[in-house]
Amino acid sequence: MYPRPFNNGMRNFIVVGHKATTTPNFSLEDIPGTSGRLDILCRAVTASFVLSHGIRKDVCVYLVLLGGETAKTIQLRGETLRHLNPDERTTAALLKKALAVPAAAGWTMSTSGIFVRTGGFAELLADLKDARLIYLREDGADVRQISAEAEKAGTTGATPSGSAVFILGDHTGMTAEEEALLEQAGAKVVSLGPTSLHADHCIVLLNWLCDTKVFMPE
Amino acid sequence: MYPRPFNNGMRNFIVVGHKATTTPNFSLEDIPGTSGRLDILCRAVTASFVLSHGIRKDVCVYLVLLGGETAKTIQLRGETLRHLNPDERTTAALLKKALAVPAAAGWTMSTSGIFVRTGGFAELLADLKDARLIYLREDGADVRQISAEAEKAGTTGATPSGSAVFILGDHTGMTAEEEALLEQAGAKVVSLGPTSLHADHCIVLLNWLCDTKVFMPE
Repeated sequence: MYPRPFNNGMRNFIVVGHKATTTPNFSLEDIPGTSGRLDILCRAVTASFVLSHGIRKDVCVYLVLLGGETAKTIQLRGETLRHLNPDERTTAALLKKALAVPAAAGWTMSTSGIFVRTGGFAELLADLKDARLIYLREDGADVRQISAEAEKAGTTGATPSGSAVFILGDHTGMTAEEEALLEQAGAKVVSLGPTSLHADHCIVLLNWLCDTKVFMPE
Repeated sequence: MYPRPFNNGMRNFIVVGHKATTTPNFSLEDIPGTSGRLDILCRAVTASFVLSHGIRKDVCVYLVLLGGETAKTIQLRGETLRHLNPDERTTAALLKKALAVPAAAGWTMSTSGIFVRTGGFAELLADLKDARLIYLREDGADVRQISAEAEKAGTTGATPSGSAVFILGDHTGMTAEEEALLEQAGAKVVSLGPTSLHADHCIVLLNWLCDTKVFMPE
Protein backbone atom coordinates (compact mmCIF):
# COMPACT_ATOMS: atom_id res chain seq x y z
CA MET A 1 0.00 0.00 0.00
CA TYR A 2 1.54 3.27 -1.07
CA PRO A 3 1.47 5.78 1.80
CA ARG A 4 0.21 9.37 1.91
CA PRO A 5 -2.33 9.54 -0.89
CA PHE A 6 -3.28 13.10 0.14
CA ASN A 7 -2.01 16.06 2.13
CA ASN A 8 1.24 14.98 0.63
CA GLY A 9 2.77 18.35 -0.23
CA MET A 10 2.19 17.57 -3.89
CA ARG A 11 0.02 19.12 -6.57
CA ASN A 12 -2.56 16.48 -7.41
CA PHE A 13 -4.69 15.94 -10.49
CA ILE A 14 -7.56 13.44 -10.78
CA VAL A 15 -8.85 12.67 -14.25
CA VAL A 16 -11.90 10.43 -14.60
CA GLY A 17 -12.10 8.28 -17.74
CA HIS A 18 -15.67 7.04 -17.85
CA LYS A 19 -15.12 4.71 -20.78
CA ALA A 20 -11.40 4.08 -20.22
CA THR A 21 -10.32 0.47 -20.44
CA THR A 22 -9.11 -1.37 -17.34
CA THR A 23 -7.27 -4.04 -19.35
CA PRO A 24 -4.08 -3.89 -21.43
CA ASN A 25 -5.95 -5.23 -24.46
CA PHE A 26 -5.87 -2.11 -26.58
CA SER A 27 -3.84 -1.19 -29.63
CA LEU A 28 -1.05 1.40 -29.53
CA GLU A 29 -1.77 1.87 -33.24
CA ASP A 30 -5.28 3.13 -32.49
CA ILE A 31 -5.43 4.34 -28.90
CA PRO A 32 -8.59 6.50 -29.23
CA GLY A 33 -10.53 3.74 -31.02
CA THR A 34 -9.56 0.72 -28.92
CA SER A 35 -9.04 1.89 -25.33
CA GLY A 36 -12.16 3.89 -24.44
CA ARG A 37 -10.32 7.14 -25.07
CA LEU A 38 -7.27 6.40 -22.94
CA ASP A 39 -5.57 8.93 -25.25
CA ILE A 40 -7.30 11.68 -23.24
CA LEU A 41 -5.71 10.36 -20.04
CA CYS A 42 -2.30 9.97 -21.72
CA ARG A 43 -2.31 13.63 -22.69
CA ALA A 44 -3.45 14.56 -19.19
CA VAL A 45 -0.42 12.69 -17.80
CA THR A 46 2.10 14.48 -20.03
CA ALA A 47 0.42 17.84 -19.36
CA SER A 48 0.77 17.17 -15.64
CA PHE A 49 4.42 16.19 -15.63
CA VAL A 50 6.55 17.19 -18.57
CA LEU A 51 8.75 20.27 -18.62
CA SER A 52 11.30 21.25 -21.26
CA HIS A 53 14.11 19.69 -19.29
CA GLY A 54 12.71 17.03 -17.01
CA ILE A 55 9.51 16.25 -15.20
CA ARG A 56 7.68 17.85 -12.29
CA LYS A 57 8.67 16.02 -9.12
CA ASP A 58 5.93 17.65 -7.03
CA VAL A 59 2.97 16.39 -9.06
CA CYS A 60 0.79 13.34 -8.47
CA VAL A 61 -1.81 12.14 -10.97
CA TYR A 62 -4.71 9.76 -10.39
CA LEU A 63 -6.40 8.25 -13.45
CA VAL A 64 -9.78 6.74 -12.63
CA LEU A 65 -10.64 4.10 -15.22
CA LEU A 66 -14.32 3.20 -15.30
CA GLY A 67 -14.65 1.41 -18.63
CA GLY A 68 -14.25 -2.14 -17.33
CA GLU A 69 -16.15 -4.58 -15.14
CA THR A 70 -14.16 -3.53 -12.10
CA ALA A 71 -12.98 0.06 -11.81
CA LYS A 72 -9.24 0.67 -11.52
CA THR A 73 -7.18 3.66 -10.50
CA ILE A 74 -3.64 4.36 -11.70
CA GLN A 75 -1.46 6.66 -9.62
CA LEU A 76 1.63 8.38 -11.09
CA ARG A 77 4.02 10.14 -8.70
CA GLY A 78 6.53 12.64 -10.06
CA GLU A 79 9.07 12.06 -7.32
CA THR A 80 9.88 8.55 -8.57
CA LEU A 81 8.32 8.52 -12.05
CA ARG A 82 10.59 7.11 -14.77
CA HIS A 83 10.40 6.44 -18.53
CA LEU A 84 7.84 9.19 -19.22
CA ASN A 85 8.35 10.79 -22.62
CA PRO A 86 6.31 13.68 -23.98
CA ASP A 87 4.71 11.67 -26.78
CA GLU A 88 1.32 10.05 -26.40
CA ARG A 89 2.26 6.56 -27.47
CA THR A 90 4.98 5.92 -24.89
CA THR A 91 2.64 7.16 -22.16
CA ALA A 92 -0.01 4.73 -23.42
CA ALA A 93 2.60 1.96 -23.30
CA LEU A 94 3.33 2.77 -19.64
CA LEU A 95 -0.39 2.63 -18.82
CA LYS A 96 -0.69 -0.65 -20.74
CA LYS A 97 2.00 -2.12 -18.48
CA ALA A 98 0.21 -0.84 -15.38
CA LEU A 99 -3.05 -2.43 -16.55
CA ALA A 100 -1.30 -5.78 -17.00
CA VAL A 101 -0.34 -5.83 -13.31
CA PRO A 102 -2.77 -7.89 -11.18
CA ALA A 103 -4.61 -5.18 -9.23
CA ALA A 104 -5.94 -5.46 -5.68
CA ALA A 105 -7.47 -2.99 -3.23
CA GLY A 106 -4.01 -1.73 -2.20
CA TRP A 107 -1.53 0.01 -4.50
CA THR A 108 0.79 -2.28 -6.48
CA MET A 109 3.78 -0.80 -8.30
CA SER A 110 3.99 -1.32 -12.05
CA THR A 111 7.04 0.66 -13.24
CA SER A 112 8.91 3.26 -11.17
CA GLY A 113 6.45 5.86 -9.90
CA ILE A 114 3.36 4.15 -11.35
CA PHE A 115 0.92 2.29 -9.10
CA VAL A 116 -2.39 0.57 -9.72
CA ARG A 117 -5.29 -0.63 -7.60
CA THR A 118 -8.92 -1.62 -7.97
CA GLY A 119 -11.56 0.94 -7.02
CA GLY A 120 -13.00 4.03 -8.62
CA PHE A 121 -13.89 7.62 -7.90
CA ALA A 122 -15.78 7.13 -4.63
CA GLU A 123 -12.88 5.16 -3.13
CA LEU A 124 -10.38 7.80 -4.22
CA LEU A 125 -12.46 10.66 -2.83
CA ALA A 126 -12.78 8.79 0.46
CA ASP A 127 -8.96 8.72 0.64
CA LEU A 128 -8.79 12.42 -0.16
CA LYS A 129 -11.55 13.60 2.14
CA ASP A 130 -9.29 15.97 4.10
CA ALA A 131 -7.63 17.53 1.06
CA ARG A 132 -8.47 20.85 -0.64
CA LEU A 133 -10.60 19.61 -3.54
CA ILE A 134 -11.01 21.82 -6.58
CA TYR A 135 -13.43 20.60 -9.22
CA LEU A 136 -13.03 22.16 -12.66
CA ARG A 137 -16.32 22.91 -14.37
CA GLU A 138 -17.17 25.52 -16.98
CA ASP A 139 -19.79 27.25 -14.84
CA GLY A 140 -17.67 27.37 -11.66
CA ALA A 141 -16.20 30.44 -9.97
CA ASP A 142 -13.85 32.24 -12.35
CA VAL A 143 -10.27 31.35 -11.52
CA ARG A 144 -9.21 34.92 -12.36
CA GLN A 145 -11.70 36.36 -9.91
CA ILE A 146 -10.53 34.03 -7.15
CA SER A 147 -7.01 35.09 -7.96
CA ALA A 148 -7.91 38.81 -7.86
CA GLU A 149 -9.68 38.39 -4.52
CA ALA A 150 -6.71 36.53 -3.08
CA GLU A 151 -4.40 39.29 -4.24
CA LYS A 152 -6.66 41.94 -2.73
CA ALA A 153 -6.67 40.03 0.53
CA GLY A 154 -2.90 39.74 0.32
CA THR A 155 -3.02 35.97 0.35
CA THR A 156 -1.58 35.28 -3.10
CA GLY A 157 1.50 33.20 -2.65
CA ALA A 158 0.64 32.55 0.99
CA THR A 159 -0.90 29.17 0.37
CA PRO A 160 1.17 26.51 -1.35
CA SER A 161 -0.40 24.70 -4.25
CA GLY A 162 0.92 21.45 -2.83
CA SER A 163 -1.78 19.16 -1.44
CA ALA A 164 -4.40 20.78 -3.63
CA VAL A 165 -6.39 18.22 -5.62
CA PHE A 166 -7.76 19.30 -8.99
CA ILE A 167 -10.54 17.10 -10.37
CA LEU A 168 -11.30 16.95 -14.10
CA GLY A 169 -13.71 14.94 -16.18
CA ASP A 170 -13.02 13.44 -19.59
CA HIS A 171 -14.87 14.28 -22.81
CA THR A 172 -18.16 13.19 -21.23
CA GLY A 173 -17.78 15.47 -18.18
CA MET A 174 -18.73 14.14 -14.75
CA THR A 175 -21.90 12.23 -13.84
CA ALA A 176 -24.56 13.58 -11.46
CA GLU A 177 -23.54 10.88 -8.98
CA GLU A 178 -19.89 11.95 -9.09
CA GLU A 179 -20.89 15.58 -8.70
CA ALA A 180 -22.93 14.68 -5.64
CA LEU A 181 -19.87 12.98 -4.13
CA LEU A 182 -17.80 16.08 -4.87
CA GLU A 183 -20.37 18.33 -3.24
CA GLN A 184 -20.49 16.11 -0.15
CA ALA A 185 -16.71 16.23 0.01
CA GLY A 186 -16.81 20.03 -0.02
CA ALA A 187 -15.10 20.52 -3.37
CA LYS A 188 -14.83 24.10 -4.62
CA VAL A 189 -16.13 24.46 -8.19
CA VAL A 190 -13.78 26.54 -10.31
CA SER A 191 -13.82 27.55 -13.97
CA LEU A 192 -10.95 28.45 -16.26
CA GLY A 193 -13.16 30.68 -18.38
CA PRO A 194 -15.91 30.56 -20.94
CA THR A 195 -14.04 28.48 -23.53
CA SER A 196 -14.57 24.75 -23.06
CA LEU A 197 -11.15 23.09 -22.99
CA HIS A 198 -9.79 19.56 -23.02
CA ALA A 199 -8.64 18.13 -19.68
CA ASP A 200 -4.94 18.20 -20.65
CA HIS A 201 -5.14 21.86 -21.60
CA CYS A 202 -6.83 22.64 -18.27
CA ILE A 203 -3.93 20.90 -16.51
CA VAL A 204 -1.35 22.96 -18.43
CA LEU A 205 -3.18 26.10 -17.28
CA LEU A 206 -3.51 24.95 -13.67
CA ASN A 207 0.19 24.11 -13.49
CA TRP A 208 1.06 27.54 -14.88
CA LEU A 209 -1.37 29.37 -12.61
CA CYS A 210 0.12 27.62 -9.59
CA ASP A 211 3.73 28.05 -10.84
CA THR A 212 3.28 31.77 -11.36
CA LYS A 213 1.24 32.13 -8.18
CA VAL A 214 -1.59 33.72 -10.16
CA PHE A 215 -3.88 31.16 -8.59
CA MET A 216 -3.14 29.62 -5.23
CA PRO A 217 -5.99 27.42 -4.13
CA GLU A 218 -6.94 27.98 -0.53
CA MET B 1 -0.99 30.56 -53.80
CA TYR B 2 -3.04 30.97 -50.65
CA PRO B 3 -3.85 34.63 -49.99
CA ARG B 4 -3.36 36.75 -46.86
CA PRO B 5 -0.60 34.98 -44.98
CA PHE B 6 -0.53 37.77 -42.38
CA ASN B 7 -2.61 40.62 -41.03
CA ASN B 8 -5.37 38.13 -41.52
CA GLY B 9 -7.45 38.75 -38.41
CA MET B 10 -6.29 35.38 -37.11
CA ARG B 11 -4.20 34.32 -34.14
CA ASN B 12 -1.03 32.88 -35.66
CA PHE B 13 1.53 30.45 -34.27
CA ILE B 14 4.86 29.61 -35.88
CA VAL B 15 6.72 26.56 -34.61
CA VAL B 16 10.17 25.84 -35.96
CA GLY B 17 11.22 22.17 -36.15
CA HIS B 18 14.97 22.25 -36.70
CA LYS B 19 15.27 18.50 -37.26
CA ALA B 20 11.74 17.89 -38.52
CA THR B 21 11.49 15.73 -41.63
CA THR B 22 10.32 17.22 -44.93
CA THR B 23 9.36 13.83 -46.40
CA PRO B 24 6.49 11.47 -45.59
CA ASN B 25 8.96 8.63 -44.94
CA PHE B 26 8.46 8.32 -41.21
CA SER B 27 6.66 5.74 -39.12
CA LEU B 28 3.40 6.49 -37.32
CA GLU B 29 4.44 3.71 -34.93
CA ASP B 30 7.49 5.71 -33.81
CA ILE B 31 6.96 9.38 -34.59
CA PRO B 32 9.60 10.80 -32.22
CA GLY B 33 12.27 8.37 -33.39
CA THR B 34 11.73 8.49 -37.15
CA SER B 35 10.53 11.99 -38.05
CA GLY B 36 13.04 14.37 -36.44
CA ARG B 37 10.63 15.03 -33.58
CA LEU B 38 7.59 15.81 -35.68
CA ASP B 39 5.68 14.71 -32.56
CA ILE B 40 6.50 18.12 -31.03
CA LEU B 41 4.86 19.85 -33.98
CA CYS B 42 1.84 17.52 -33.86
CA ARG B 43 1.20 18.47 -30.25
CA ALA B 44 1.67 22.13 -31.14
CA VAL B 45 -1.04 21.76 -33.79
CA THR B 46 -3.58 20.20 -31.44
CA ALA B 47 -2.75 22.74 -28.72
CA SER B 48 -3.41 25.51 -31.24
CA PHE B 49 -6.74 24.27 -32.54
CA VAL B 50 -8.65 21.79 -30.42
CA LEU B 51 -11.44 22.78 -28.06
CA SER B 52 -13.80 20.47 -26.19
CA HIS B 53 -16.43 20.78 -28.87
CA GLY B 54 -14.78 21.73 -32.12
CA ILE B 55 -11.74 23.59 -33.33
CA ARG B 56 -10.65 27.21 -33.23
CA LYS B 57 -11.60 28.83 -36.54
CA ASP B 58 -9.55 31.97 -35.89
CA VAL B 59 -6.17 30.27 -35.56
CA CYS B 60 -3.49 29.75 -38.18
CA VAL B 61 -0.40 27.60 -37.59
CA TYR B 62 2.84 27.56 -39.56
CA LEU B 63 5.17 24.59 -39.07
CA VAL B 64 8.67 25.29 -40.36
CA LEU B 65 10.40 21.99 -41.17
CA LEU B 66 14.16 22.27 -41.43
CA GLY B 67 15.27 18.65 -41.20
CA GLY B 68 15.47 17.95 -44.95
CA GLU B 69 17.56 19.04 -47.91
CA THR B 70 15.05 21.73 -48.82
CA ALA B 71 13.09 23.42 -46.08
CA LYS B 72 9.31 23.19 -46.16
CA THR B 73 6.55 25.05 -44.38
CA ILE B 74 3.13 23.62 -43.62
CA GLN B 75 0.26 26.01 -42.99
CA LEU B 76 -2.92 24.95 -41.15
CA ARG B 77 -5.89 27.31 -41.18
CA GLY B 78 -8.69 26.85 -38.66
CA GLU B 79 -11.38 28.35 -40.88
CA THR B 80 -11.26 25.43 -43.32
CA LEU B 81 -9.31 22.79 -41.37
CA ARG B 82 -10.88 19.30 -41.45
CA HIS B 83 -10.10 15.83 -40.06
CA LEU B 84 -8.12 17.12 -37.06
CA ASN B 85 -8.55 14.89 -34.02
CA PRO B 86 -7.03 15.56 -30.61
CA ASP B 87 -4.70 12.56 -30.70
CA GLU B 88 -1.11 12.82 -31.85
CA ARG B 89 -1.16 10.03 -34.39
CA THR B 90 -3.96 11.34 -36.58
CA THR B 91 -2.29 14.75 -36.65
CA ALA B 92 0.94 13.08 -37.74
CA ALA B 93 -1.02 11.27 -40.47
CA LEU B 94 -2.34 14.62 -41.75
CA LEU B 95 1.20 16.04 -41.83
CA LYS B 96 2.43 12.89 -43.59
CA LYS B 97 -0.14 13.54 -46.33
CA ALA B 98 0.94 17.16 -46.63
CA LEU B 99 4.58 16.11 -46.97
CA ALA B 100 3.66 13.72 -49.81
CA VAL B 101 2.28 16.64 -51.86
CA PRO B 102 4.81 17.99 -54.39
CA ALA B 103 5.78 21.34 -52.86
CA ALA B 104 6.71 24.48 -54.76
CA ALA B 105 7.36 28.09 -53.74
CA GLY B 106 3.62 28.84 -53.63
CA TRP B 107 1.13 27.19 -51.26
CA THR B 108 -0.39 23.91 -52.48
CA MET B 109 -3.38 22.45 -50.66
CA SER B 110 -3.03 18.95 -49.19
CA THR B 111 -6.26 18.26 -47.28
CA SER B 112 -8.87 20.87 -46.36
CA GLY B 113 -7.19 23.73 -44.50
CA ILE B 114 -3.66 22.32 -44.83
CA PHE B 115 -1.17 23.85 -47.29
CA VAL B 116 2.48 23.21 -48.00
CA ARG B 117 5.29 25.05 -49.76
CA THR B 118 9.07 25.04 -49.95
CA GLY B 119 10.95 27.63 -47.93
CA GLY B 120 11.89 28.07 -44.31
CA PHE B 121 11.89 30.60 -41.52
CA ALA B 122 13.45 33.55 -43.41
CA GLU B 123 10.86 33.26 -46.18
CA LEU B 124 8.01 33.06 -43.69
CA LEU B 125 9.24 36.07 -41.71
CA ALA B 126 9.54 38.03 -44.95
CA ASP B 127 5.84 37.31 -45.57
CA LEU B 128 4.99 38.40 -42.04
CA LYS B 129 7.09 41.52 -41.88
CA ASP B 130 4.17 43.83 -41.16
CA ALA B 131 2.61 41.65 -38.46
CA ARG B 132 2.94 41.99 -34.68
CA LEU B 133 5.62 39.39 -33.99
CA ILE B 134 5.91 37.95 -30.50
CA TYR B 135 8.85 35.65 -29.88
CA LEU B 136 8.55 33.40 -26.83
CA ARG B 137 11.79 33.00 -24.92
CA GLU B 138 12.36 32.23 -21.24
CA ASP B 139 14.26 35.46 -20.57
CA GLY B 140 11.81 37.75 -22.37
CA ALA B 141 9.51 40.34 -20.81
CA ASP B 142 7.13 38.70 -18.34
CA VAL B 143 3.75 38.19 -19.96
CA ARG B 144 2.05 39.00 -16.64
CA GLN B 145 3.86 42.32 -16.38
CA ILE B 146 2.88 43.27 -19.91
CA SER B 147 -0.67 42.35 -19.03
CA ALA B 148 -0.61 44.42 -15.81
CA GLU B 149 0.78 47.45 -17.66
CA ALA B 150 -1.87 47.13 -20.37
CA GLU B 151 -4.57 46.98 -17.69
CA LYS B 152 -3.13 50.03 -15.94
CA ALA B 153 -3.11 51.88 -19.24
CA GLY B 154 -6.69 50.75 -19.83
CA THR B 155 -5.78 48.98 -23.03
CA THR B 156 -6.59 45.42 -22.00
CA GLY B 157 -9.19 44.13 -24.34
CA ALA B 158 -8.76 47.07 -26.69
CA THR B 159 -6.43 45.27 -29.06
CA PRO B 160 -7.60 42.07 -30.69
CA SER B 161 -5.29 39.07 -30.54
CA GLY B 162 -6.03 38.45 -34.21
CA SER B 163 -3.08 39.10 -36.51
CA ALA B 164 -0.61 38.57 -33.69
CA VAL B 165 2.09 36.05 -34.61
CA PHE B 166 3.60 34.00 -31.80
CA ILE B 167 6.94 32.36 -32.61
CA LEU B 168 8.15 29.28 -30.75
CA GLY B 169 11.18 27.05 -31.07
CA ASP B 170 11.25 23.28 -30.70
CA HIS B 171 13.26 21.33 -28.09
CA THR B 172 16.49 22.87 -29.45
CA GLY B 173 15.26 26.48 -29.10
CA MET B 174 16.02 28.96 -31.89
CA THR B 175 19.39 29.47 -33.58
CA ALA B 176 21.41 32.71 -33.33
CA GLU B 177 20.68 33.31 -37.01
CA GLU B 178 16.93 32.95 -36.49
CA GLU B 179 17.08 35.25 -33.48
CA ALA B 180 18.89 37.86 -35.58
CA LEU B 181 16.09 37.66 -38.15
CA LEU B 182 13.52 38.10 -35.42
CA GLU B 183 15.32 41.11 -34.03
CA GLN B 184 15.54 42.68 -37.49
CA ALA B 185 11.84 42.07 -37.93
CA GLY B 186 11.13 43.91 -34.67
CA ALA B 187 9.76 40.94 -32.75
CA LYS B 188 8.88 41.55 -29.11
CA VAL B 189 10.50 38.97 -26.80
CA VAL B 190 8.04 37.66 -24.24
CA SER B 191 8.32 35.06 -21.49
CA LEU B 192 5.62 32.91 -19.91
CA GLY B 193 7.55 32.67 -16.66
CA PRO B 194 10.55 31.02 -15.09
CA THR B 195 9.50 27.43 -15.78
CA SER B 196 10.75 26.14 -19.12
CA LEU B 197 7.78 24.67 -20.98
CA HIS B 198 7.22 22.64 -24.12
CA ALA B 199 6.00 24.54 -27.20
CA ASP B 200 2.52 22.98 -27.09
CA HIS B 201 2.05 23.97 -23.46
CA CYS B 202 3.11 27.54 -24.31
CA ILE B 203 0.46 27.58 -27.04
CA VAL B 204 -2.24 26.39 -24.63
CA LEU B 205 -1.28 29.26 -22.33
CA LEU B 206 -1.15 31.85 -25.11
CA ASN B 207 -4.58 30.81 -26.37
CA TRP B 208 -5.99 31.10 -22.86
CA LEU B 209 -4.30 34.43 -22.17
CA CYS B 210 -5.75 35.83 -25.40
CA ASP B 211 -9.18 34.20 -24.81
CA THR B 212 -9.48 35.67 -21.34
CA LYS B 213 -7.96 38.98 -22.44
CA VAL B 214 -5.32 38.67 -19.71
CA PHE B 215 -2.75 39.24 -22.42
CA MET B 216 -3.58 41.19 -25.55
CA PRO B 217 -0.48 41.68 -27.64
CA GLU B 218 -0.13 45.25 -28.86
